Amino acid sequence: MGAYSDSRGAPGVRAEVAAFIERRDGVPSSPDAIFLTEGASPSVKYILNALIRDSRDGILTPIPQYPLYSACIQHYGGTLVPYELDEAAGWGMDVGDLAKRAAAARAAGVAVRALVFINPGNPTGQCLSEANLHDIVKFAYKEKVVLMADEVYQENIYGARPFVSCKKVLASMGEPYASSVELVSFHTVSKGSTGECGLRGGYMETVNIMPETIAEIYKISSINLCPNTLGQATVALMVTSPAGESAAGYAAERSATIAAYAARAARVAAAFNACSRVTCNATEGAMYAFPRIHLSEKALAAANEAGKAPDTWYCLKLVEATGILTVPGSGFGQADGTFHLRTTILPEDARIDKMTADFRAFNDALMAEYE
Amino acid sequence: MGAYSDSRGAPGVRAEVAAFIERRDGVPSSPDAIFLTEGASPSVKYILNALIRDSRDGILTPIPQYPLYSACIQHYGGTLVPYELDEAAGWGMDVGDLAKRAAAARAAGVAVRALVFINPGNPTGQCLSEANLHDIVKFAYKEKVVLMADEVYQENIYGARPFVSCKKVLASMGEPYASSVELVSFHTVSKGSTGECGLRGGYMETVNIMPETIAEIYKISSINLCPNTLGQATVALMVTSPAGESAAGYAAERSATIAAYAARAARVAAAFNACSRVTCNATEGAMYAFPRIHLSEKALAAANEAGKAPDTWYCLKLVEATGILTVPGSGFGQADGTFHLRTTILPEDARIDKMTADFRAFNDALMAEYE
Repeated sequence: MGAYSDSRGAPGVRAEVAAFIERRDGVPSSPDAIFLTEGASPSVKYILNALIRDSRDGILTPIPQYPLYSACIQHYGGTLVPYELDEAAGWGMDVGDLAKRAAAARAAGVAVRALVFINPGNPTGQCLSEANLHDIVKFAYKEKVVLMADEVYQENIYGARPFVSCKKVLASMGEPYASSVELVSFHTVSKGSTGECGLRGGYMETVNIMPETIAEIYKISSINLCPNTLGQATVALMVTSPAGESAAGYAAERSATIAAYAARAARVAAAFNACSRVTCNATEGAMYAFPRIHLSEKALAAANEAGKAPDTWYCLKLVEATGILTVPGSGFGQADGTFHLRTTILPEDARIDKMTADFRAFNDALMAEYE
Repeated sequence: MGAYSDSRGAPGVRAEVAAFIERRDGVPSSPDAIFLTEGASPSVKYILNALIRDSRDGILTPIPQYPLYSACIQHYGGTLVPYELDEAAGWGMDVGDLAKRAAAARAAGVAVRALVFINPGNPTGQCLSEANLHDIVKFAYKEKVVLMADEVYQENIYGARPFVSCKKVLASMGEPYASSVELVSFHTVSKGSTGECGLRGGYMETVNIMPETIAEIYKISSINLCPNTLGQATVALMVTSPAGESAAGYAAERSATIAAYAARAARVAAAFNACSRVTCNATEGAMYAFPRIHLSEKALAAANEAGKAPDTWYCLKLVEATGILTVPGSGFGQADGTFHLRTTILPEDARIDKMTADFRAFNDALMAEYE
């Protein structure tokens, strides 16, 4: 553990990652297409850094989104081209709208170079359907954009819809898509049943990316010498389930962890939907609920008078009254005139029940006060 | 270890680093001025990224230098303003020459914003004198440049001259220097007697840097969430010697490690100086020897005919004939018309003796062949 490794990560670990992807998708994967990084974030940064030359380069980014993307796009001097997830369709992607957004950006002189999507969604908790993924691949082919598939929550699945990787869908579509659409997907040890976020382990797999580009990213990665070796080892553990006598115990523990998340995901969404003027899509994956709070005109006026965004005003009142800490939807972006907050399904059952009960008491009183 | 920490690193570890610096220098240090990073490299990147706007911003960088600096300056689109270390003065810094280089860069429209120096030196192995550090601080004050003190080899000291931190010298000089010269210094667990480079732990301390700038760096560091926690813990171990019954054993082991390096440093320099047409400054610190190879006109012509830089030509012949792998001086930069190679003093005694004997046999035969 004490020595530097290859700057892309140890060859043995990359081989284990490639084998994991092959088992998962039934599609070939090569260790040479894989970079290990300190969590998924540095992988995302490598790709955005490679894509963005200046403000004329645009990246299609979902709204709401995990703010890694907005932060990095701004840091590298590019342009965030927003597209809205469809809350009424369970936070699905509307590819017709995507095309309009891309065309509008191009008309404004922005070269749209990539499409970011997060599946399962953060903060929105949706799983994309295979049909949606098909449309995304066709869009990428037609518009010649790189697909950036943030799949870090791939193990966190709670509903009827399974996780399907974008790579698997791409391979299943045959030519001209399979060998030409450029795709980079991201995974991490910070989520799933591993959850070792402090150890900083993750990877990206590149598909149909030119070898010359890979060589440049390799060169850039070598500036930091290598990702930390313990994080690399943790990636190896994540992608390789224990065999032999440990196998059954591991599988049972892992299933129980995911089942507990699933039960809490359902409980949290139901609790939010039982609140006055709150609606919440089901959490199909990831670790979050992203309920919408339908604030009255009177509440909006009160927030305005307090000099705060309405969701921030609501979340501050919530934490002051109950101790429940949430993130205002404006931290992730949201459709104009809508307000949300993000919370997590991670706490154990007893604390979730206390949280949802306290939330409802606070919310219903506030909504009544500002009716 | 499994949870995210503060993006600057865990407060407890930063407090231990500050206490270490206070013990070392006898000068106050604050945890709020310290960032933990994955080795020292990301710290260097944060500072260069903050300093460089575009190619009109220049960074004074030693020649020879550790190529982290040239790579990052190019990556961020800045201009490397080279200054030569004085080989005849044991690779010391000639501050008169520095001022000339800075003036020439400014005349060419480059805003010189920082001065990088590596003490103890990589690849050159020198320790800077206190007088040299005084001159450097005065230069920084006069020219209004940020000092970037790469002090990652501060524990690797082999000669009569002790390591003195730039911060200690700065504080000792009083006003107007002490409270105005901007300084960032770097340290790591990858060197010294720790040597756990694969774990990726390191830190930077900022001195006289504006709080607004610190806040921006904090924001940028939060994109990656946090440095890996095990690397942070290793930093804590490096800066806090064991107490109680382990103390004596630890001190003895550490002294023995450094003493072994010191003996090998002397042996390696002596061996190079015994070779034909090779001269080598003493390795006073760090882990390297950087001998100069004085190639004849005939040898230079042979290299030219082979289409290779003379030092690369020499190093390739060396590895082919003996298996000894070295790095050509051109990888670090060197004064025009001079040629060097970098090797390390790390291998154990028996291997060092075999290496120096094989090297001498190869070198003396080659020098005779091309006399």
